Amino acid sequence: MIAVLKNGATDKQIEGIIEWIHTLGLEVHLSKGHYQTILGIIGDTQKVDEDLLSGLEIVESVKRISEPFKSANRKFHPDDSVIKVSGTEVGGDAFTFIAGPCSVESEEQIIGIAKEVKALGATMLRGGAFKPRTSPYDFQGLKAEGIELLLEAKKETGLPIVTEIMNANHLPMFEEVDVIQVGARNMQNFELLKELGRTRKPILLKRGLANTIKEWLMSAEYIMAGGNENIILCERGIRTFETYTRNTLDISAVSVLKELTHLPVIIDPSHATGAAKYVKPMALAAAAAGAAGLMIEVHNDPVHALCDGPQSLTPAQFGEVAEGVNKILTALKA
Amino acid sequence: MIAVLKNGATDKQIEGIIEWIHTLGLEVHLSKGHYQTILGIIGDTQKVDEDLLSGLEIVESVKRISEPFKSANRKFHPDDSVIKVSGTEVGGDAFTFIAGPCSVESEEQIIGIAKEVKALGATMLRGGAFKPRTSPYDFQGLKAEGIELLLEAKKETGLPIVTEIMNANHLPMFEEVDVIQVGARNMQNFELLKELGRTRKPILLKRGLANTIKEWLMSAEYIMAGGNENIILCERGIRTFETYTRNTLDISAVSVLKELTHLPVIIDPSHATGAAKYVKPMALAAAAAGAAGLMIEVHNDPVHALCDGPQSLTPAQFGEVAEGVNKILTALKA
Amino acid sequence: MIAVLKNGATDKQIEGIIEWIHTLGLEVHLSKGHYQTILGIIGDTQKVDEDLLSGLEIVESVKRISEPFKSANRKFHPDDSVIKVSGTEVGGDAFTFIAGPCSVESEEQIIGIAKEVKALGATMLRGGAFKPRTSPYDFQGLKAEGIELLLEAKKETGLPIVTEIMNANHLPMFEEVDVIQVGARNMQNFELLKELGRTRKPILLKRGLANTIKEWLMSAEYIMAGGNENIILCERGIRTFETYTRNTLDISAVSVLKELTHLPVIIDPSHATGAAKYVKPMALAAAAAGAAGLMIEVHNDPVHALCDGPQSLTPAQFGEVAEGVNKILTALKA
Amino acid sequence: MIAVLKNGATDKQIEGIIEWIHTLGLEVHLSKGHYQTILGIIGDTQKVDEDLLSGLEIVESVKRISEPFKSANRKFHPDDSVIKVSGTEVGGDAFTFIAGPCSVESEEQIIGIAKEVKALGATMLRGGAFKPRTSPYDFQGLKAEGIELLLEAKKETGLPIVTEIMNANHLPMFEEVDVIQVGARNMQNFELLKELGRTRKPILLKRGLANTIKEWLMSAEYIMAGGNENIILCERGIRTFETYTRNTLDISAVSVLKELTHLPVIIDPSHATGAAKYVKPMALAAAAAGAAGLMIEVHNDPVHALCDGPQSLTPAQFGEVAEGVNKILTALKA
Repeated sequence: MIAVLKNGATDKQIEGIIEWIHTLGLEVHLSKGHYQTILGIIGDTQKVDEDLLSGLEIVESVKRISEPFKSANRKFHPDDSVIKVSGTEVGGDAFTFIAGPCSVESEEQIIGIAKEVKALGATMLRGGAFKPRTSPYDFQGLKAEGIELLLEAKKETGLPIVTEIMNANHLPMFEEVDVIQVGARNMQNFELLKELGRTRKPILLKRGLANTIKEWLMSAEYIMAGGNENIILCERGIRTFETYTRNTLDISAVSVLKELTHLPVIIDPSHATGAAKYVKPMALAAAAAGAAGLMIEVHNDPVHALCDGPQSLTPAQFGEVAEGVNKILTALKA
Repeated sequence: MIAVLKNGATDKQIEGIIEWIHTLGLEVHLSKGHYQTILGIIGDTQKVDEDLLSGLEIVESVKRISEPFKSANRKFHPDDSVIKVSGTEVGGDAFTFIAGPCSVESEEQIIGIAKEVKALGATMLRGGAFKPRTSPYDFQGLKAEGIELLLEAKKETGLPIVTEIMNANHLPMFEEVDVIQVGARNMQNFELLKELGRTRKPILLKRGLANTIKEWLMSAEYIMAGGNENIILCERGIRTFETYTRNTLDISAVSVLKELTHLPVIIDPSHATGAAKYVKPMALAAAAAGAAGLMIEVHNDPVHALCDGPQSLTPAQFGEVAEGVNKILTALKA
Repeated sequence: MIAVLKNGATDKQIEGIIEWIHTLGLEVHLSKGHYQTILGIIGDTQKVDEDLLSGLEIVESVKRISEPFKSANRKFHPDDSVIKVSGTEVGGDAFTFIAGPCSVESEEQIIGIAKEVKALGATMLRGGAFKPRTSPYDFQGLKAEGIELLLEAKKETGLPIVTEIMNANHLPMFEEVDVIQVGARNMQNFELLKELGRTRKPILLKRGLANTIKEWLMSAEYIMAGGNENIILCERGIRTFETYTRNTLDISAVSVLKELTHLPVIIDPSHATGAAKYVKPMALAAAAAGAAGLMIEVHNDPVHALCDGPQSLTPAQFGEVAEGVNKILTALKA
Repeated sequence: MIAVLKNGATDKQIEGIIEWIHTLGLEVHLSKGHYQTILGIIGDTQKVDEDLLSGLEIVESVKRISEPFKSANRKFHPDDSVIKVSGTEVGGDAFTFIAGPCSVESEEQIIGIAKEVKALGATMLRGGAFKPRTSPYDFQGLKAEGIELLLEAKKETGLPIVTEIMNANHLPMFEEVDVIQVGARNMQNFELLKELGRTRKPILLKRGLANTIKEWLMSAEYIMAGGNENIILCERGIRTFETYTRNTLDISAVSVLKELTHLPVIIDPSHATGAAKYVKPMALAAAAAGAAGLMIEVHNDPVHALCDGPQSLTPAQFGEVAEGVNKILTALKA
């Protein structure tokens, strides 16, 4: 961590700041130039509150050399993490296909879809029981009953299930859920993240709509700081000025994350684009870019889906996506 | 609400969709052109799930004529709402000055600041007890103890207090708090909003970092749908590409909101800009633009503040802001 | 085109507006509801100035059903355009590899790189002669001499050359250039676009840093309106809040454009990400997503390149990219 | 300027880079820590190409301490610049009101508006002769004839005139124009900026739609590097995700620029918001924030304006804006 001091900082002021840094258990390397005095702060600089340091009167600017995340950081954990999910794995050599409807609607629907997507290559089943909707007047999900139906579908097909949590008080209902999803709008719901850190469940952490990669990793860090290291990151599009797609899929986040962290990264092309017609090309792009998997909305009757219909694929379309992705994975391994 | 149908929609399909809309208790006005068939949907169109309608195979596009928010909508409530807060008012003819530190640090600190800002014109005291921090390793606030200290400061000065909630389970601790703040990161924490809708406490609802004005009003609607209409909106800067300021203060949101809603809107120039030196000009701009008040970070020792130091004013600087704002308000009334 | 009128529009006003639309040679389909009066405007609605219509006192809002671009529109030209470039083709079945340095530096450099990239699969040579730099104090390119050196390299290798124009007055120097590039910063330099519309040269039109897909197609339309239909679109990243990459590659633009236009779309992963290490995965993603080609910075001595060094590949790295891309293209055709 | 070197840089590599910096006439202050080696580069660091330095293999990151702009920099020119414009002044104690229509349409129109706005307080007349329009099919302005009509209006009223240039080849037509405007879309048309640097005309430089304050000042620097220091900056809204307003007025840019540069900054609330109803509150906000003036669209028949009608004020509305602004300016001086 480097702090550049303002011109005119007195020796007494400089001593004061160095002393304060020492009290945090860190070393300081002082470099006094004609024009500029620079402090190099060495040690576990996560102890230094960057805002506080910048706020000191004699400090012109502060630059972190090392990233503020630690448990998620590849530097301290060079090998890829592989997250074990009830008999299957995410990350490493595996490629994960999570498929299913936006909302669980009925037993018939969810079991029907589960069987179809399993036959076409899905390795996990998704389905929303608790739904975060922008409007209080829109359908909010089947809630506890939705989870029951997902567990029925799991029993029928053996597919592990992924579903979203919106409230830590609901955790008891998620006891048999295989992967708990944190949605984009809750990425910085730190109270929820802390509670999930106390579990040992695999967490699928979606990127917030307008959150930087660094903030996303800090949210992973909240969960990991509690002792739960089973995290799957999921890029689902960011908010930009472009309006042809619902959001803008930040495909380069895959490459950046592979460098910064050991956690697996998957892509949700359905929410990123908001249109079924763009899902296949974006899924292929994700596989080519090195993502560890895909999360895709599939509905057996997309035009009557209770939410997010326009972006759902039919099972047959999902099968085509899986086939295309497997061609690319095979070609790149060759 | 207008639905434009695709070329080639058959009469049978059109009848089907009209029938479905009728089942929602709405009327349809059909306009069949050579090139385009248009359905005008009339009645309480909040019953129509826009995503669902767009998803129908024969629908090309859907356009809402009326806004999806109702309780917050000025059309159904033409007069400005005035929110009563323990003997003072927000909105209407009043101009509100909320001042205080980012974090409550000690009894001496919070009582000292409270006395100073009251003498200089503050009408409410702010102070963070539960702090949402991007990093799990940063200072997280004094929590329950912080609220106790705020209540001490209230007892000493009579100033109503504003403080942030991060978890609905903490509500019992907020019983004596005058205004409960929902922070930017929780603006779409719908579970929290629903719980706050069950109280009758005034809620200060901050705009999310990258949320549209419409989404913000829908979040107000979540609280109001529960029966709590005591909402104060607070603009605190949005995320853009510019980096000289921490966020970009969207000053025009004040004008837009005055048109769309009857709820009062205040401005937080401290968080919007992230720099003490920009607070005064932005506070003056807010007053000139017609904001109902300001929320300003004030610390008696800004360079040692435990968080957000660089953006805090000294009490004396706050006094200058209040003086400038009052000059503008007086001049515009003349 | 649909115009929704305000409540309270009088019959006389409505007749007035209909009459005006008739004078433009268009038909109007009037739909009068209890709550809303709607005008459906039919015919060549490009004649209607949308801003003007919205500005009329009785108009509440205007919605275009058809896109404002015509020559670039796939609806009127369903087949993919294939742009002929001096013996090679862009679009259709071909996949284009444009490679070369950011700036032309010397005869030795440009001929050396040209030979190497040709051997590794490049189908065109790029190199900057006129360089748009943010700072007037940065290297501005070799200008006319740079073009001479590119033509030397073309003579040696047979590779067609692509280079950027910044000023229509320079057109005479571009007479033997095969493809003229319009850079991101000039995407809406309408005077330059009009001049290029008078030539019949293939134009590589880069997307502006913060321009929508619609604006981009309107800029293509400027060139096409002059009679030059030889346009290659190039996505090079858009400006967002994320800072780990220089810009955010909008990979979904490929899919959107394939739907909206018949013009070929290529991707520039070097400028989009700003980092050599991210070029390969993004190039593979582009190929998988269906791009018609790639434009990649290659330098034989990246660390000493006079501009944009950090994002340049070595020729060997370019070879690996081409190999990976070809694997994917082959796999997807299988 | 600070360069942080990578761990593992050898002494020989470090010597090499220091030597290279010396050849640019700069000094280096070396600080070797256990973990990090840092070079402090001292002198006129504008000579260092930041991209090039970052590109060197052993460099981890580069941070500029001083800004890359020089002529525009307040550090080297502490007093506010006052731009003389044909008998009036922009900046300093003056507050400038530039008013007039988006497009010049006829002699009657422009002279009529000029007389009205002058009587109501305008100090300059604006009017578009060459119009940058997104679509080639929209009205492009009266061109040379428009400038003639503006000069007629100047003769009648004495108001200096402001009009936009789109092509350096048109400069001879601008000989009698008082202030030449560079539009947002041409802010990085460096060839145009260089030509304007060779004149001594006052230039009104609008901020690009998605350009940072730093890039904007670098564009001013392009003009100033040619010897023309008569620059007025004009903020006109930036592109964000919000859609209720056409763009988002970045009001804090006024404060940032007052700190960074000595050049005067004015605000264009008409283009920033795109709606007449928001112009007055934003104009008041601009005055309160310390802007040096306003540029406002005024039309005597806004609903029939040939472009940008919805955002034009009537002369009477402009009069109200001027009155409100003057109240604020007077109050703040008291």
